[in-house]
Amino acid sequence: MTRFIKKNKQHIGLPPDELIFRGQKKIDQVLLRIIDFDSTNLTEDYVKTVKEISEFQHKNTVTWINVDGLHNTSIMEEITSAFNLDTLVMAEVLNTEARPRVIEYDNCTLITIKMLQNDDNSNKTIVENLSLILTKSVLISFQERKGDVFEPVRERIRKQKKRIRNGGTDYLTFALLDIVVDNYLYVISLLGEKIETLEETLLLNPNQKIINEINNYKRELNFLRKSIKPAKEMIFSLAKLDSDYIGESTHVHYKELEDNISQANDASDDYREILSDQLNIYHTTISSKLNDIMKFLTVFSVIFIPLTFIAGIYGTNFEYVPELSYKYSYFIMWGLMIVIAVIMLLFFKNKKWF
Amino acid sequence: MTRFIKKNKQHIGLPPDELIFRGQKKIDQVLLRIIDFDSTNLTEDYVKTVKEISEFQHKNTVTWINVDGLHNTSIMEEITSAFNLDTLVMAEVLNTEARPRVIEYDNCTLITIKMLQNDDNSNKTIVENLSLILTKSVLISFQERKGDVFEPVRERIRKQKKRIRNGGTDYLTFALLDIVVDNYLYVISLLGEKIETLEETLLLNPNQKIINEINNYKRELNFLRKSIKPAKEMIFSLAKLDSDYIGESTHVHYKELEDNISQANDASDDYREILSDQLNIYHTTISSKLNDIMKFLTVFSVIFIPLTFIAGIYGTNFEYVPELSYKYSYFIMWGLMIVIAVIMLLFFKNKKWF
Amino acid sequence: MTRFIKKNKQHIGLPPDELIFRGQKKIDQVLLRIIDFDSTNLTEDYVKTVKEISEFQHKNTVTWINVDGLHNTSIMEEITSAFNLDTLVMAEVLNTEARPRVIEYDNCTLITIKMLQNDDNSNKTIVENLSLILTKSVLISFQERKGDVFEPVRERIRKQKKRIRNGGTDYLTFALLDIVVDNYLYVISLLGEKIETLEETLLLNPNQKIINEINNYKRELNFLRKSIKPAKEMIFSLAKLDSDYIGESTHVHYKELEDNISQANDASDDYREILSDQLNIYHTTISSKLNDIMKFLTVFSVIFIPLTFIAGIYGTNFEYVPELSYKYSYFIMWGLMIVIAVIMLLFFKNKKWF
Amino acid sequence: MTRFIKKNKQHIGLPPDELIFRGQKKIDQVLLRIIDFDSTNLTEDYVKTVKEISEFQHKNTVTWINVDGLHNTSIMEEITSAFNLDTLVMAEVLNTEARPRVIEYDNCTLITIKMLQNDDNSNKTIVENLSLILTKSVLISFQERKGDVFEPVRERIRKQKKRIRNGGTDYLTFALLDIVVDNYLYVISLLGEKIETLEETLLLNPNQKIINEINNYKRELNFLRKSIKPAKEMIFSLAKLDSDYIGESTHVHYKELEDNISQANDASDDYREILSDQLNIYHTTISSKLNDIMKFLTVFSVIFIPLTFIAGIYGTNFEYVPELSYKYSYFIMWGLMIVIAVIMLLFFKNKKWF
Amino acid sequence: MTRFIKKNKQHIGLPPDELIFRGQKKIDQVLLRIIDFDSTNLTEDYVKTVKEISEFQHKNTVTWINVDGLHNTSIMEEITSAFNLDTLVMAEVLNTEARPRVIEYDNCTLITIKMLQNDDNSNKTIVENLSLILTKSVLISFQERKGDVFEPVRERIRKQKKRIRNGGTDYLTFALLDIVVDNYLYVISLLGEKIETLEETLLLNPNQKIINEINNYKRELNFLRKSIKPAKEMIFSLAKLDSDYIGESTHVHYKELEDNISQANDASDDYREILSDQLNIYHTTISSKLNDIMKFLTVFSVIFIPLTFIAGIYGTNFEYVPELSYKYSYFIMWGLMIVIAVIMLLFFKNKKWF
Repeated sequence: MTRFIKKNKQHIGLPPDELIFRGQKKIDQVLLRIIDFDSTNLTEDYVKTVKEISEFQHKNTVTWINVDGLHNTSIMEEITSAFNLDTLVMAEVLNTEARPRVIEYDNCTLITIKMLQNDDNSNKTIVENLSLILTKSVLISFQERKGDVFEPVRERIRKQKKRIRNGGTDYLTFALLDIVVDNYLYVISLLGEKIETLEETLLLNPNQKIINEINNYKRELNFLRKSIKPAKEMIFSLAKLDSDYIGESTHVHYKELEDNISQANDASDDYREILSDQLNIYHTTISSKLNDIMKFLTVFSVIFIPLTFIAGIYGTNFEYVPELSYKYSYFIMWGLMIVIAVIMLLFFKNKKWF
Repeated sequence: MTRFIKKNKQHIGLPPDELIFRGQKKIDQVLLRIIDFDSTNLTEDYVKTVKEISEFQHKNTVTWINVDGLHNTSIMEEITSAFNLDTLVMAEVLNTEARPRVIEYDNCTLITIKMLQNDDNSNKTIVENLSLILTKSVLISFQERKGDVFEPVRERIRKQKKRIRNGGTDYLTFALLDIVVDNYLYVISLLGEKIETLEETLLLNPNQKIINEINNYKRELNFLRKSIKPAKEMIFSLAKLDSDYIGESTHVHYKELEDNISQANDASDDYREILSDQLNIYHTTISSKLNDIMKFLTVFSVIFIPLTFIAGIYGTNFEYVPELSYKYSYFIMWGLMIVIAVIMLLFFKNKKWF
Repeated sequence: MTRFIKKNKQHIGLPPDELIFRGQKKIDQVLLRIIDFDSTNLTEDYVKTVKEISEFQHKNTVTWINVDGLHNTSIMEEITSAFNLDTLVMAEVLNTEARPRVIEYDNCTLITIKMLQNDDNSNKTIVENLSLILTKSVLISFQERKGDVFEPVRERIRKQKKRIRNGGTDYLTFALLDIVVDNYLYVISLLGEKIETLEETLLLNPNQKIINEINNYKRELNFLRKSIKPAKEMIFSLAKLDSDYIGESTHVHYKELEDNISQANDASDDYREILSDQLNIYHTTISSKLNDIMKFLTVFSVIFIPLTFIAGIYGTNFEYVPELSYKYSYFIMWGLMIVIAVIMLLFFKNKKWF
Repeated sequence: MTRFIKKNKQHIGLPPDELIFRGQKKIDQVLLRIIDFDSTNLTEDYVKTVKEISEFQHKNTVTWINVDGLHNTSIMEEITSAFNLDTLVMAEVLNTEARPRVIEYDNCTLITIKMLQNDDNSNKTIVENLSLILTKSVLISFQERKGDVFEPVRERIRKQKKRIRNGGTDYLTFALLDIVVDNYLYVISLLGEKIETLEETLLLNPNQKIINEINNYKRELNFLRKSIKPAKEMIFSLAKLDSDYIGESTHVHYKELEDNISQANDASDDYREILSDQLNIYHTTISSKLNDIMKFLTVFSVIFIPLTFIAGIYGTNFEYVPELSYKYSYFIMWGLMIVIAVIMLLFFKNKKWF
Repeated sequence: MTRFIKKNKQHIGLPPDELIFRGQKKIDQVLLRIIDFDSTNLTEDYVKTVKEISEFQHKNTVTWINVDGLHNTSIMEEITSAFNLDTLVMAEVLNTEARPRVIEYDNCTLITIKMLQNDDNSNKTIVENLSLILTKSVLISFQERKGDVFEPVRERIRKQKKRIRNGGTDYLTFALLDIVVDNYLYVISLLGEKIETLEETLLLNPNQKIINEINNYKRELNFLRKSIKPAKEMIFSLAKLDSDYIGESTHVHYKELEDNISQANDASDDYREILSDQLNIYHTTISSKLNDIMKFLTVFSVIFIPLTFIAGIYGTNFEYVPELSYKYSYFIMWGLMIVIAVIMLLFFKNKKWF
């Protein structure tokens, strides 16, 4: 299964406004949740039908509709017509494999971004496509699975935190994107911790497993970068966007988003370089160790080769080998061997081979 | 045969408006197909002569003329004069080795792009130059071979899908380019699947074949990138173009094209880096395995070298070697050898060589 | 502990104006110091309560308030309300893990930057987040620990150096940032000295320790770059900023800051490349030495292998080996061996193996 | 001789308008050729003196003066005064080592570019500096050697090809630059063919010669890139230039030039990467083969080392070695040796060493 | 001693207008030289005191004051007050470790750049900081040592070369910078010659010394790049500068400066890549040679190992070894050995190991 890009042959040539869910079904039933508030009032509810939602759009309050699960195309169609959206917009929402993007339509702004979360059980990173449809008074957020990642925002709304209760849909959008980007930072910081731990053991005990780990971290990092880099582009173009639905007053917040996503992006770049450096260091260490091994073998071989040769000489069965009959020949041989060995050792010592 | 760039010496210095087909003939006969439609009516036909086409250009409808095969220069000349085009335009269409480009002429816009398709039989990627001549009411598309890649668009026209039947030539152009870019994504995703599969077997069983595969994938990727990178440039300049023939209403679609081609481009960049990483990992793994081999050889040699030396000593034929005549000498020698071997083994154990 | 990025899971989803100190407590008690001056008068004092400070803000003088230690949230809140700041501003000040940034608020400009200092005792680099809140007549600087790094500026103020006593808060800001950037240059120059010293010993005596040192310097450099690169971005955007609180007359100074931070950044880039080059050179040297080792072993082995073989031949116990009984056989064998050895030596000499 | 940059110490500090020929003399005598034309008339001639040329400049026709050979400074001075040029312009023409550039002067535009041609005899690439002085009605082209590279353009002029006979000096300039750029493409395509051929033999039969070839191609490519990269810059700045001497109508042609030079530049970038990849692949292949060699040596040694040791044991001359006197000892030894060898083989088989 | 960046701890926190000479004293006494000229008159003199100079500034002529040596702070102060300069300007002049820069002050423009010169005696590159203070009628140039590098310009002034005698201080500035940049080109071309010579011997005779040379050239190149890269930035920003002291008429000259510094910069980039390629090629060559060495050792060992083993077998002293007593055993053994050796040789031949 390809991870980096997935393109289904069946989807080539489809009209851009065809409502086809192109992802994997990650939740059984579509969940519709609504939070409607202004600075004084608050309504929060799970709803069953789109009709119940649509009446909120003409109120003067801020309405946040959260849709968990995208696979039920008929519900999507209902939302499309209830809020008078272009089918193009909803088709984009369903296209979960697309690149993070901001598109301004006639009566709304669409923002899509990948959400990265660390699953505390499996310790794996989960990716999910988040789409936000932003109008003057309504924010519709679409998630692929039932998620409680935005719970802190709901909490802040409930607790009547001033800024969020007085802000419009643009501030709410910022609050959601802020959580997404904070999760980027969190996920990278977890990976980074592993990478920096590896660095410390790299030089102490280099072994084959380290290559596996470096490789795994590279893959994971590539995977994160694939989401973070276009998200950065998206957020920068969002901050520059002259949208009707994003007010002046939230600009300072979008500036902060820019800084945070830049930090995430920088960190992913840095870790990428660190991993490359680690592989290099490892390779050089390995080569250095090979030298030590070969020096060891060479010293050992070179000392014994002439000694064994000498023993071989006096193991020959020639009838006339004068040395064999002298009484002290054997001891002289030993003496000679020791002298040769010592000279060799001094030679290698001099060459700084050990 | 060079793949990356092909320049025929004979073509140097030709006037830019000389109608010479510079590619390879990939189809026997030029095919002319016409689809003429507005929101209510639809005419679809294969035609034999250019005359039959030319009458459509003054109607108020959208006319899509599809020309398969470029080698028949006389037909090209007829089209040129029938639609009152600059010969420069047609010369560009015939120059199939050129870089993807958008050029605005006085009475038309020319768009050229490379089409990449996966041939399902041979599993190879086929490249073809696609040229689009865009005027207010006529779109002429030129393909090098008979292709059914645009069939989904024809289908949408036939099925009276609103957007395409109400759109102009600019929307039609978008629809065709969209298919081209979707095919980029598809072709890359196929290659990417192979690359990511390779990654999994890289560390388990590194062998010479992997270098071949990495090399092949690199070549294939270079080949794709050669088409995708300038296509990206072209599409971005197209989106910025202030053309008479591309209306405001299609801007949102061209934005999507930009995103898709960026995704294709990013993916090709990512896979490129992954392949480089794989080669690095492979090289480091190989070096690491060499260390293991040499450690093995060294341990084995270093243990046996002194033992064989001792045996050699007592194989000498000196007349007076005192040890030879002691009754237990042979067993003492064995004992000594075992002690040496054990010391050696402990030494290597201590060095963590195994 | 991760160094490059640190993100606490508890902080995800907090409102941007929540006053939470996100760093480590590095000082016991918050220190408030005040310097108030114009060209003629000077007041300098340590104060205990925020009230004592707040009265200075309406005077016509320049007031510099230095806050050492950020952990006491209630003092921060007092400052916030005393100077009528947005809580967002103070939340940024407390967020010491954030990226260096300039943000313009309604009634102030916030500048944050990492301070790098060389601790002369441990010879390690200390990082600290510096935040500056700049209004027309007040500059509030926040440091994480009690620091005397700005003492030279205080000295200049006391000594009635004209420029600083006549300048506004913008000039004072420049003076502080100038010290921060000068410390960057100083810290890099210290590291650079070590790196360039390493270079000299790299080729003379390559050994495993050099990899450790290269790796350590890389880590240290990465660590510095992490602060310097975004600081450069920040200073360039600061110089371009059309702020109410930064006057025309200080532009020439901000230009100088740009040059200095660029110099620091260039130097860090250069040292990065030098370290990579060093690792490459080291790896190549190691490989080159391995060739020498293997040449040595090969020459030695290849000369003795056939000699030992010959000795082995005449050590066989066949009953009929004609050579054994000739009187001069033993000496002929020696002659033959010497001839073989000389031929081998000439062969290797010819191959330039030694 | 340096190829990449050549700077004569004597030329440092010369005034910019000093007419000194700084290149090598590549032709014996300066050749002056003139082609004067409008849509109906054509004069073509070799002339001896500058006087004969100067009268053409006030006619309403397009006059193309081709100067082959730059070493005769007095002729250059005559041209300078005949056409009332700034001496700066002519000094630039004579400075053949300079970077390709476009400079607008008061009464002319100067364009310089390197011409790359493949010499079909030696199969080497020849470089030559081409300078074009462009005024309203006169184009003076300066070449270092007698060249027939522009013959196709002359042919087109003679054959009364409409576009070129109706165009002005700007169209003529385009036609010449087009040939230069086409030659870039041709030269690169020739080199590219060699590089892609190399790729095919790289994995089949890696040997030392391949390094030489890769190195040679790298050098050649560097050499080409040195001309192509600044030429690209030059052509892009030319296309953006708001010159009096380049009319609106030729903009579409300059756009094509941009595309072609970009294609040349892309191809040179691509080949550069391919060569780097090839060297990497080669290095990895070599390392992989080394593993095979060492495995082979290790397997062979490790099998025979204990066998030879055993034989050595029973070659000792101890008086009391019980095994020696048993009748079947010799055969038992053989059996033992075979068992050891088989166990070893199975061990290596299990380790997948062969 | 660090070369890339030097920061004295004592200088941190100094006011920007403190006149402290931060470099090394490179000349004993400060030399003041004056050249005052217009198109007709010329005064040239060495002066002792600043007073003698200051009277020139109100004349209508162009005055070029050359100051060799910066260590005498009191002279610097005199110049500052004589020409009514901001002390900031002079502080910049004395800060010889700073980055090349252009700064516009109220009544002057300051230009600083590093001068690189090849010392013909030691064949080393000398660096020196050049500062130019440019006003309407006065140009003050500051050098660190007594230099005659600008002698050609003085010569041109003396010889009444029109352009320089009629030009203003801006043209004079160009003339000086032109010499500086020409020296860059010269210094690089000298280094380049060495690098390209190295390339030719790289493949013929690779040895350890080559690593040293590559490393030395890398260091030298890094050193040059450190001056050239910021100089390029400086010159480009100078050309874009809307200064009161740089007239329209010199723009064409500054364009040329841009081209020349770009050429120097490109060349340094190119050589950098060539050196990296050389190291790569060298490393690969070394690895390739190691394969040859190991093949040689393996072939030799593998042929003799079984032969020596066989000889060992028949050197055993078993009482009953049937082969020993056959008369032709010895010759059969030789035959067997030869057969084994030939088979081995054919095997390796087949494997293309030699």
